[in-house]
Amino acid sequence: MDSVISEDFAPLAQALEARAAEEENYSAQLAIYHRGELVLSHSVGEHLSGDALTCVFSCTKGLSALVVALLVQDGLIDPSAPMTTYWPEFGASGKSALSVGEVLSHQAGVLGVPGGVPSQILLDSAEYAKVLASMPSIWPLGQNIVGYHAITMGVLMEELVRRVTGKELKEVFEERIRKPLGVDVYIGQDPSLESRYRDVLPAVDAPSEFFDPFSPAGLAVNSASGFALADGPVYNWHELANAAQVRELGPASMGGVANAQGLAAIYAASFGAVPSLGAANGFLNADTWAQVSTELVYGHDRTSGLLQAFALGFMKATARNNYGSIFAYGHDGANSSLAFADPAYQLGFGYIPSRNEGPKDTSTGVQLSQLARQLILAKNAKAKSN
Amino acid sequence: MDSVISEDFAPLAQALEARAAEEENYSAQLAIYHRGELVLSHSVGEHLSGDALTCVFSCTKGLSALVVALLVQDGLIDPSAPMTTYWPEFGASGKSALSVGEVLSHQAGVLGVPGGVPSQILLDSAEYAKVLASMPSIWPLGQNIVGYHAITMGVLMEELVRRVTGKELKEVFEERIRKPLGVDVYIGQDPSLESRYRDVLPAVDAPSEFFDPFSPAGLAVNSASGFALADGPVYNWHELANAAQVRELGPASMGGVANAQGLAAIYAASFGAVPSLGAANGFLNADTWAQVSTELVYGHDRTSGLLQAFALGFMKATARNNYGSIFAYGHDGANSSLAFADPAYQLGFGYIPSRNEGPKDTSTGVQLSQLARQLILAKNAKAKSN
Amino acid sequence: MDSVISEDFAPLAQALEARAAEEENYSAQLAIYHRGELVLSHSVGEHLSGDALTCVFSCTKGLSALVVALLVQDGLIDPSAPMTTYWPEFGASGKSALSVGEVLSHQAGVLGVPGGVPSQILLDSAEYAKVLASMPSIWPLGQNIVGYHAITMGVLMEELVRRVTGKELKEVFEERIRKPLGVDVYIGQDPSLESRYRDVLPAVDAPSEFFDPFSPAGLAVNSASGFALADGPVYNWHELANAAQVRELGPASMGGVANAQGLAAIYAASFGAVPSLGAANGFLNADTWAQVSTELVYGHDRTSGLLQAFALGFMKATARNNYGSIFAYGHDGANSSLAFADPAYQLGFGYIPSRNEGPKDTSTGVQLSQLARQLILAKNAKAKSN
Repeated sequence: MDSVISEDFAPLAQALEARAAEEENYSAQLAIYHRGELVLSHSVGEHLSGDALTCVFSCTKGLSALVVALLVQDGLIDPSAPMTTYWPEFGASGKSALSVGEVLSHQAGVLGVPGGVPSQILLDSAEYAKVLASMPSIWPLGQNIVGYHAITMGVLMEELVRRVTGKELKEVFEERIRKPLGVDVYIGQDPSLESRYRDVLPAVDAPSEFFDPFSPAGLAVNSASGFALADGPVYNWHELANAAQVRELGPASMGGVANAQGLAAIYAASFGAVPSLGAANGFLNADTWAQVSTELVYGHDRTSGLLQAFALGFMKATARNNYGSIFAYGHDGANSSLAFADPAYQLGFGYIPSRNEGPKDTSTGVQLSQLARQLILAKNAKAKSN
Repeated sequence: MDSVISEDFAPLAQALEARAAEEENYSAQLAIYHRGELVLSHSVGEHLSGDALTCVFSCTKGLSALVVALLVQDGLIDPSAPMTTYWPEFGASGKSALSVGEVLSHQAGVLGVPGGVPSQILLDSAEYAKVLASMPSIWPLGQNIVGYHAITMGVLMEELVRRVTGKELKEVFEERIRKPLGVDVYIGQDPSLESRYRDVLPAVDAPSEFFDPFSPAGLAVNSASGFALADGPVYNWHELANAAQVRELGPASMGGVANAQGLAAIYAASFGAVPSLGAANGFLNADTWAQVSTELVYGHDRTSGLLQAFALGFMKATARNNYGSIFAYGHDGANSSLAFADPAYQLGFGYIPSRNEGPKDTSTGVQLSQLARQLILAKNAKAKSN
Repeated sequence: MDSVISEDFAPLAQALEARAAEEENYSAQLAIYHRGELVLSHSVGEHLSGDALTCVFSCTKGLSALVVALLVQDGLIDPSAPMTTYWPEFGASGKSALSVGEVLSHQAGVLGVPGGVPSQILLDSAEYAKVLASMPSIWPLGQNIVGYHAITMGVLMEELVRRVTGKELKEVFEERIRKPLGVDVYIGQDPSLESRYRDVLPAVDAPSEFFDPFSPAGLAVNSASGFALADGPVYNWHELANAAQVRELGPASMGGVANAQGLAAIYAASFGAVPSLGAANGFLNADTWAQVSTELVYGHDRTSGLLQAFALGFMKATARNNYGSIFAYGHDGANSSLAFADPAYQLGFGYIPSRNEGPKDTSTGVQLSQLARQLILAKNAKAKSN
């Protein structure tokens, strides 16, 4: 993939180069669409150079939320309706009052299965959905408590899509988003792309924290039984991501495979025209993206104790995760990847590093997002003064 | 202004001197009323010595809240009524259920105008109020989310006062608070006082944080377009404060000009007699000050992520901003000024430094407020044992 | 008391020894029941060795909550009913809508008496209960605000038990919990045990924070008047605990006296059989312990600003106080003691050090609880693979 560096955005390429100079073996991709044009696509380091694809973890949740948004636009899903309207079984064990919006903004409290998810259902989203539907919330409902459903959010979104379309979420994504745009973003990677896949690398300083498998945090990452794959269980996110079985299946929570340019392109095309991709207008109209990006909850996460805000499946920016404006919708991932749309800036943003970079407050992705916005403001100011 | 230092409160003067010794060019005023008497009025450093007046920023919000409190006492405003009772247009865009109390405790989510407030309305509170009335909240209502309305709180209070009295907030302040007490606290400074005005100085270590103009924090301070004044836009709080145009206009959020003694006097006279000012009893009766100082919301601010608690326009003390008791009502300002009443201590407190001093947890104002309360407790204990 | 160290849990004894090696004069007791058997009982240091008993402060609240749980099981208390069902006077001053569950999860906002509790009622729970019943909440109800009722929680629980049984809470505890199990845990210590009592030692680095007696934090610890005892007022927790008058009275909030083995035994016997104590089954059936351990509130404490979660009188684990699973119920104390049941691990846990050890995030008790759970997981994994 050729490097694209337009003049106004060159400082972003320089910032990425400066970041690479700080850390041996750092490798990352960054791409920016502004006003429907690719104004930056650049990579540093060897690992993610050229036509490399890699797992983008929870950035996948943002892509899945775009699928849900299309179904909202189609009139098939009403975010304010009870989840039971579409999925009656979900109302079991005291959850009948939860709206689609509450569930998709991480308020349902069905983080996982105490003791660990049985291996035969962990990667069988339809079966796992049955288990989640039957469970009580682990926190008091009606208090707008938020807790990150790291794995189960994908299962919940997949079942919702299945109920209203009869199709798998990844099928709808392929038909309505990926294929029309022709971008390198896959939920369920085709084996033919295998040679382009680059492993997610282990974090340099992974903390050796104890994730009690019966605690909110442990439930959320299924720390009890790990991830039972064909070759045995794996416990680390990067091993999970790097299992071919997983990326071919494409769980909606974390199984997406992409490059940064593809992520930026999808988000750019979600709210506006991207002529180079043949996208005449955004695939979400303004009413839809405004609706699905509306903040639904704000608080300190029940799993981590840290600030979070969510819209309909999308992560919203906060003082802790200051990636965009109040209009931005997107998601980050466990490898410190970040992808979002920010209509206030006419911005589509994609960033993928080769490994986790630690707390998101100070992450490279958030810093680059701030620089991108500052450059756009400067460009706008220049245009105005001319 | 002569220094007043009564024996029991001398340690406060010493603490202020000690603070001055720590930092070159530090200048500040401190005043304490206890049981209706001026027991301390002292300044250090040259800048704010003598008859100096300076801008007190958001301490102005506390003064404006005292005006609202008087109208509550008059029976003109019911804090539990919907804001639309007095201002029907405010109910637009989904805000009709908000009570006066919710709006004045920073729960409405109308922090500013994305993209920046048009210069012709920024300082035209009646016009700006129309814009705010039409806007949706930027966060989900009904969850008691709190976010600091740094600029717009004044606009909201001004419009409310306008609707129920037909007068400007600053007129009511002048007629019912400032003039009867004859203190040096002005919302809308008269040009004749200009020679006494001392500039707010720039903070020593101002962080160079990026305030995204479309983020909650950026909206709140209108970082998009800055403050369009006659001589061009200014972007820093201290430049705004120091513009004669602004202090003569007197926006209810931040345009007040005062000395510490005046602030302390007003708060002392709000709940009790201050014979030297001819105030026979507090201008708020006990029912009123208890009502308007009742906490209405507590949480982590949507703009900053930091702890906040508010009553009807007043800032309440928290573990982070530990300035007073549960009965205290007051406000601090961006120059690290602090002014409040604490009926539990029969205390009126005013502190104004020449420049911002950083995080409020450890601010000089909060530390002095703690020492003042400790001295009063010691004095009471001594009186009891005699 | 003889040391018991079963092989699988020996690392806990080693961890305790290692902790002792870090600090001169450190002394502590640790006891673990697993699957109904005492698998560890060990002490280090001289102070709490042998048959020593000491005050366990707010661990007493957990014991009191077990009494309430028994009455829930008996059908005498419905946690979702208004508190006024059992205690009509409690509805005064705007508190009539509060449920028993809300009150016992620290949501009522009756933290103490501004200005200090009159000495004649501080230790007279029935009289103090009348005062609390008459008071308004200090925060807005209906927002699920949580604030630690350090002293008054015991008063509230005692009055509730009094109303539904006609007995004192400590009598019910003695009859239904302590006596049947024959353990060394006393609410209201008998004078005959006096020779075994060991003083709580003062904390090494106690912060000299100012607790405003009219602030939420000061109200909660009655910092205004201290604790008026026969020999005069005391202001420190450890002096309060060490007054014979207090431990013989046994206030339900903090007056319990115990050793670690007794605490662990009670919690083990609360959910399962402990053959050595003649407890055929847990004294709470599974429906009851599931009900009373259900989380009722989660948020940042109004007194401290720190994360808290509570069930029906029990403290729940959070990211800040990560002592157990979502099923765990227990409480810690101001001397950094910790005692809980964790049915997910078939675990009864008791830890008592000789003095306060600072913030709970990193406390020895929480660390030992994590190691205990890891050892159980390892043991289970070993059993499974055999």
